[in-house]
Amino acid sequence: MASLVKKFGGTSVGTVERIQAVAKKLAKAKEAGDDQVVVVSAMSGETNRLVAMAKEVMPATVDVRELDVLLSTGEQVTIALLCMALKTLGCDARSYTGAQVRILTDSSHSKARIVSIDTDKITTDLEKGRIVVVAGFQGVDAEGDITTLGRGGSDTSAVALAAALGSDECQIFTDVDGVYTTDPRVESKARRLDRITFEEMLEMASLGSKVLQIRAVEFAGKYNVPLRVLSSFEEGEGTLITTDDEENEMEQALVSGIAFNRDEAQITITNIADQPGTAYSILGPIADLNVEVDMIVQNAGVDGTTDFTFTVHRDEYQRVLDFLVARQKELGAATVTGNDQIVKVSIVGVGMRSHAGIASRMFRALSEKGINLRMITTSEIKISVVIDEDYLELGVRSLHDEFGLADAAVTEA
Amino acid sequence: MASLVKKFGGTSVGTVERIQAVAKKLAKAKEAGDDQVVVVSAMSGETNRLVAMAKEVMPATVDVRELDVLLSTGEQVTIALLCMALKTLGCDARSYTGAQVRILTDSSHSKARIVSIDTDKITTDLEKGRIVVVAGFQGVDAEGDITTLGRGGSDTSAVALAAALGSDECQIFTDVDGVYTTDPRVESKARRLDRITFEEMLEMASLGSKVLQIRAVEFAGKYNVPLRVLSSFEEGEGTLITTDDEENEMEQALVSGIAFNRDEAQITITNIADQPGTAYSILGPIADLNVEVDMIVQNAGVDGTTDFTFTVHRDEYQRVLDFLVARQKELGAATVTGNDQIVKVSIVGVGMRSHAGIASRMFRALSEKGINLRMITTSEIKISVVIDEDYLELGVRSLHDEFGLADAAVTEA
Repeated sequence: MASLVKKFGGTSVGTVERIQAVAKKLAKAKEAGDDQVVVVSAMSGETNRLVAMAKEVMPATVDVRELDVLLSTGEQVTIALLCMALKTLGCDARSYTGAQVRILTDSSHSKARIVSIDTDKITTDLEKGRIVVVAGFQGVDAEGDITTLGRGGSDTSAVALAAALGSDECQIFTDVDGVYTTDPRVESKARRLDRITFEEMLEMASLGSKVLQIRAVEFAGKYNVPLRVLSSFEEGEGTLITTDDEENEMEQALVSGIAFNRDEAQITITNIADQPGTAYSILGPIADLNVEVDMIVQNAGVDGTTDFTFTVHRDEYQRVLDFLVARQKELGAATVTGNDQIVKVSIVGVGMRSHAGIASRMFRALSEKGINLRMITTSEIKISVVIDEDYLELGVRSLHDEFGLADAAVTEA
Repeated sequence: MASLVKKFGGTSVGTVERIQAVAKKLAKAKEAGDDQVVVVSAMSGETNRLVAMAKEVMPATVDVRELDVLLSTGEQVTIALLCMALKTLGCDARSYTGAQVRILTDSSHSKARIVSIDTDKITTDLEKGRIVVVAGFQGVDAEGDITTLGRGGSDTSAVALAAALGSDECQIFTDVDGVYTTDPRVESKARRLDRITFEEMLEMASLGSKVLQIRAVEFAGKYNVPLRVLSSFEEGEGTLITTDDEENEMEQALVSGIAFNRDEAQITITNIADQPGTAYSILGPIADLNVEVDMIVQNAGVDGTTDFTFTVHRDEYQRVLDFLVARQKELGAATVTGNDQIVKVSIVGVGMRSHAGIASRMFRALSEKGINLRMITTSEIKISVVIDEDYLELGVRSLHDEFGLADAAVTEA
């Protein structure tokens, strides 16, 4: 008998029929003896509908306290409907809002952090054989005000509940059947991973494999809650995200996956003074524009000047470029140029830690296809390169081959 | 400076524009110095939308605990949007769900009764100059489960809050501008009443003038909360519903209004044994069918038998008639007949208490128009007759004239 927290996202509960399908899945697992706590999101489209109304009423700034009161109704609708569907199938079930199981958070409306969870009601219900259904994404602060955890916060709710309850696993049901070595739309040989570490998942997620919320993965890693990504619509084992088990490290693949991101654009500033404060003088004002900067590369200069290159989201590209061009003189830069026809491709794997030569294998594989590298950054378990957009598919496929990701068997250097 | 509870129903907050209009009205009153606690319903249509989803998920019996979780989201959406609209106008405002101000109820889901209200948060907010917006229709039981008060329960929430806060007045904003002497669609000379007593209002409401929920009026009467019905859309004083002030009794109109009900049907059982238990032998099984009986008339018999006539809702008419026809022999009745082409017309007024001859004036006025009376029942402040449906308009207008209701001045016998 397993003790499980199962989370179903907005698409999985997007219609009454889908809610009924989720109920059937849960009823089946109940028969098999699982203790189940279920976390659900708002039905897909519902949050957008509510946000649209809020914007109509309050076009300028939105009141975050009241927005949380508004948005939290989305999940509340789903928990009630799911419990009704479960009862129709003869399963005893009970719904709780975030406030009712006292998912206590700080008071940062719209991006609250979970402080504690009162599991008394849940454990009592589980002991009575009930399926417990909890509204994701929401909590309550010390004053009793409703808070929300921000978009995708339901994943975080699920992990927090699994941690608080000491569940065997936190299962995230979504519209994909697991985490893949890369995007199957780009490389048809992409393979579902049976296991991946929290660290790898973090790098994969932040690089564009949008299966799980980064915060939930961090949270799961911190509290060592085994996390599994599965399909709501198909049977299967999904992908288990777990700690980097030292014993298994020898079996670990060198590279677990290839991530990529098409949403980036690159900006380069040449021949600026190579002195303390240069990076800040460029990036400080950009942060003030509320623009997030992703990759940052600075080459050591030879003549007292240096070149500085970074990437931003494509939607911000023109605004940032215009801003820096206007400040070119002030920065003392020779040129300010940019390119929004680029992509970032990354290889991710904890195996990199203990194996040398992976970077050179990556660069060789790309150069053999005539792909030019415009930027390179590395971290302990990830190497990222920026290449011309046209070469994305070719680059991903050649790296997928190079590191043997299509094979089910693990590859050793 | 008045301390007011104001309630806006579903139609008054049915769109974002209407919510903004309500906010403007409140902002204006705030400037005039009113302390305001606002109770709102779900946006019109929302409750039906939610109920439809529930029925889709749970077609047979509905789970009342989960239905309350579901339905309570309707008002929660409105409180958030109204607060946002108020803030956009520069008014500080704060929303509360039923659970948040602890509108403590019993655990009778879907028809819960209010036990107490914790007014601490509300009074603190009012002291800070805030407009407090509370979700109507909902509460929370001792276990922390969400409850609802049943359809129209928002009126009850408003009255209960006014009682708990000791407000000067509970104002119910609706789509009519007050309580009328009769339905203006039937009698164009119908006039808005400035004042009416709780008792009169109860008789008017239960007789088909569906302006206010009966329960809310009872509640207001019990706690002596002055209740005012006003239009959400037009300026005006509305109708004040208050206690029967002895000092003003001399000024009281004989008849305050003419109510009528087109939804009734009449069933007559003739020549049944005139003995103890007869009425129960007929009505007991009908109550078991979950049918509500309205008027009941039994004539004293002369030959040891009696005739028994009662009215039910037209929707139940055929079912009840078939049921009794099948039991005719068992009841020992000569005939079981019915008529669903009838209406009930009533005159209501506390003035009847101290004045004789009102019934005969009513009957004379109707007979002068050739209207036959099929049933008559009387109470202390009401006389009801059943007449043929075709004569409804004529009957109402002749009574309206007879008792001088079109004149603003009061009529004395």
